[in-house]
Amino acid sequence: MKSYLKLCEKFETTSRIYNAMAILGWDNSVIMQPGSAEDRARQQSTLGAIAHQITTAPEINELLLDAEKNETKDLDDWQKSNLRLMRNEWIHNNAVPEKLLTEMTMATSECEITWRDAKQANDFKAFAAPLKKVLKLSREVAGLKSKALKLSLYDALLDQYDEGRRSADIDNIFAGLKNFLPGFIEQVKSKQSKLPQAKKPIGPFPVEKQKAIALKMMERMGFDFNKGRLDVSAHPFSGGTSDDVRITTRYNESDYTKALMGVFHETGHALYSAGVPAKYRGQPVGNCLGMGIHESQSLLMEMQVCRSRDFINFLAPQVQEAFGNTPENSADNLYLYYNKVEPGLIRVDADEVTYPIHVIIRYEIEKQLVEGTLEVDDIPELWNKMMKDMLGVTVPSDREGCMQDIHWSDGSFGYFPTYTLGAMTAAQLFAKCKKDNPNILNEISQGNFNSLVSWLRENVHSKGCLYTADELINKVTGQPLNAEVYKDYLKNKYLGN
Amino acid sequence: MKSYLKLCEKFETTSRIYNAMAILGWDNSVIMQPGSAEDRARQQSTLGAIAHQITTAPEINELLLDAEKNETKDLDDWQKSNLRLMRNEWIHNNAVPEKLLTEMTMATSECEITWRDAKQANDFKAFAAPLKKVLKLSREVAGLKSKALKLSLYDALLDQYDEGRRSADIDNIFAGLKNFLPGFIEQVKSKQSKLPQAKKPIGPFPVEKQKAIALKMMERMGFDFNKGRLDVSAHPFSGGTSDDVRITTRYNESDYTKALMGVFHETGHALYSAGVPAKYRGQPVGNCLGMGIHESQSLLMEMQVCRSRDFINFLAPQVQEAFGNTPENSADNLYLYYNKVEPGLIRVDADEVTYPIHVIIRYEIEKQLVEGTLEVDDIPELWNKMMKDMLGVTVPSDREGCMQDIHWSDGSFGYFPTYTLGAMTAAQLFAKCKKDNPNILNEISQGNFNSLVSWLRENVHSKGCLYTADELINKVTGQPLNAEVYKDYLKNKYLGN
Repeated sequence: MKSYLKLCEKFETTSRIYNAMAILGWDNSVIMQPGSAEDRARQQSTLGAIAHQITTAPEINELLLDAEKNETKDLDDWQKSNLRLMRNEWIHNNAVPEKLLTEMTMATSECEITWRDAKQANDFKAFAAPLKKVLKLSREVAGLKSKALKLSLYDALLDQYDEGRRSADIDNIFAGLKNFLPGFIEQVKSKQSKLPQAKKPIGPFPVEKQKAIALKMMERMGFDFNKGRLDVSAHPFSGGTSDDVRITTRYNESDYTKALMGVFHETGHALYSAGVPAKYRGQPVGNCLGMGIHESQSLLMEMQVCRSRDFINFLAPQVQEAFGNTPENSADNLYLYYNKVEPGLIRVDADEVTYPIHVIIRYEIEKQLVEGTLEVDDIPELWNKMMKDMLGVTVPSDREGCMQDIHWSDGSFGYFPTYTLGAMTAAQLFAKCKKDNPNILNEISQGNFNSLVSWLRENVHSKGCLYTADELINKVTGQPLNAEVYKDYLKNKYLGN
Repeated sequence: MKSYLKLCEKFETTSRIYNAMAILGWDNSVIMQPGSAEDRARQQSTLGAIAHQITTAPEINELLLDAEKNETKDLDDWQKSNLRLMRNEWIHNNAVPEKLLTEMTMATSECEITWRDAKQANDFKAFAAPLKKVLKLSREVAGLKSKALKLSLYDALLDQYDEGRRSADIDNIFAGLKNFLPGFIEQVKSKQSKLPQAKKPIGPFPVEKQKAIALKMMERMGFDFNKGRLDVSAHPFSGGTSDDVRITTRYNESDYTKALMGVFHETGHALYSAGVPAKYRGQPVGNCLGMGIHESQSLLMEMQVCRSRDFINFLAPQVQEAFGNTPENSADNLYLYYNKVEPGLIRVDADEVTYPIHVIIRYEIEKQLVEGTLEVDDIPELWNKMMKDMLGVTVPSDREGCMQDIHWSDGSFGYFPTYTLGAMTAAQLFAKCKKDNPNILNEISQGNFNSLVSWLRENVHSKGCLYTADELINKVTGQPLNAEVYKDYLKNKYLGN
């Protein structure tokens, strides 16, 4: 096991560097003043380059080859998975020469800056030029990784965010949703039109009071404030490290509902980050699984738990105590408000039911872009057509259309589908969790998250990367990711009684 | 210049790593929760080790030798100083094997933890054991550096904090102060006893209002909030990087005077950090000079400027507006209060006049410890005797005596004298600044710091490490560090009219 242990040492070093970079990244979004951006970029690029050099050194491949050839018989399951993940990381890192990586960093940075202004000005043409460059470089990366991994162009990119996930599965799953959702949305809208209309609570809601509720809920959910924090940033996220979990939200004095639900979502991510096995800290197998499972943890907390009638029954009195016992703050209204289905233009504002359509549109477009069957210039037309066809929504401007998200500017092709895979996984996991703990929603209605968190820790968090995402889902729920479970959940929640 | 340029690249890399570590260190003190300490320590030790490996690689010595032998004729003065500093850093880094460094890190970490409890419990014996270990290892480090630098044991440690500074000069300077201060303190006390008694302002003083004044003053002083911040930490400090300056303070609702003066002090440090030449960012010559000059910048701002009657005339109305027009908040009283001389037990609470005695005591004790002529067990007796002899103060407990400071637990032998050297340098620099700008105190009394900051930038900040501290003082003031200038300043301020 000499080579394997040597590899562990190397990967531990890079893990520490990446952890340092994660804290610096958090600081970047939460603390740092704008004038320090260049200084920080220099630090991050140097740390990133050092980590990259360590994992791409020829020595690593020699150690991998030796461990794979001579040592696997001595490795337990965790170590075997660890070695497999090391190899996968090595392939991803080695496929792309440093020069291309640097070009990519510069191109995405330029594209992101242009995107902000072009979106503001609703000027797709201005955005198209740098986006073409990012796409060109992304396709180069995809080409190199595709060769190294023996995968299609798009799958090679997808594999970066969700190891082992293939677009053939996604195509299959999404085809089912495309078939199901449009009609289902109509049914839900029709049903909801007969219910009392959801009313938006009327503020102002002092930030301090919103924060107090958020912190209290996080504590109930098992967030460890000895190893983590809640702060404020322009775009809420979950960052930091497993032993130093940093989540953020954004408060609006005229609307507490978004800040709170955002915190619950990020707390789902945070519990996962904190829950991976301490024994494998610093090793690939000790990390969270790909983005699909990560998103399943936030969406399980948000969609399955916190938008449930049971949790709302617990939340409403807290909100009433802070903001008054108004009709808008009643459990009845909050439940309607948090689950109102309404096709709209903006993905991040979308409800649970229409959200997958937003993802499917992006997935289909980006797959064609990466595969070379769609030109950047043709995005708006296709986007607007799909929005009309699948959601019945007319897109009045590219600002509210194909320029709304940052992802493509960043070269994050292959990321979007993980949102919906995560939502489906969440439904499937929580269905099993309820089966294992029939009383769980009742516990949650009393603000007791113990059984939920224990179940997640045991079945998901503590497994780290021992299995692939699909293996994990199969182990826990007895079947691979299954769109039917998700559809049943939606039908039951939105059309059941 | 090939070797020189290659060296610049290497040192730029380590500078970026150290900058990242500085931000992580700031986070450690301001943001991080206690449970994340181990995780952060792992990150910092890995980054520190990587930087150490880069600067101690055999390649560096080869490059240095080549540049020193073949390239100096092509280097300008800045580059020559840069090369000299690279060599000095190389000597310091190479003198100590990594194993000893690690032992030192562990010993100081253990000693610091013990110190906190032992201080609380007033238990010097408990503290002595780990301190002996730290001292033993510090003496090993000193021995190795002493050989490499051809300096005495203590000078080898001193050189870490103030390159080129030697204890012979300090002995000389401190001897003058030891001679002068005790009698002078008596004279000042006698004079102050005949003045109105300084009254402590009576709170509460809301934190937000204290902070608003602090921020306003920082802005006046030229602090660039686009590249820096003011935050809160248990022990105020100035950290971050030249392009991302992070200062902290500590607010007390019943006393605004300390938080504000603390901010002015740290702003002096901050302006220096931000003012070093951008052209040499990342190079040793682009750094701030040793701790003596750094402390001169904070003390110039605090002692020379902000405790002056002129600045107090500007400050008092701001304080009155925030906290009421009381007799305690009058300029007359604030000036008396901020300049009250009173021998006491605690260094960090000491006034400007008695402060050097605290430093001299520590300097004399630590020099003997490093040279091996004093045992750890004998510290309290010597400490208490010197406090009695030189300050007339009876030390009631080691907690308020030789255990009050963290420095020795940290192995920072050689650091203490820089405080008083800084104070003296500040007096000498400001005397010259006033001579060059006869109207400067009048400007400051109107809250106009432009001339002051311009003068500091031109004469001190923008010089980076082009000169040694003594060379710089000589260049700017026309003479080396001269205790007489400092004494004259004290006499004029405390005994003049």
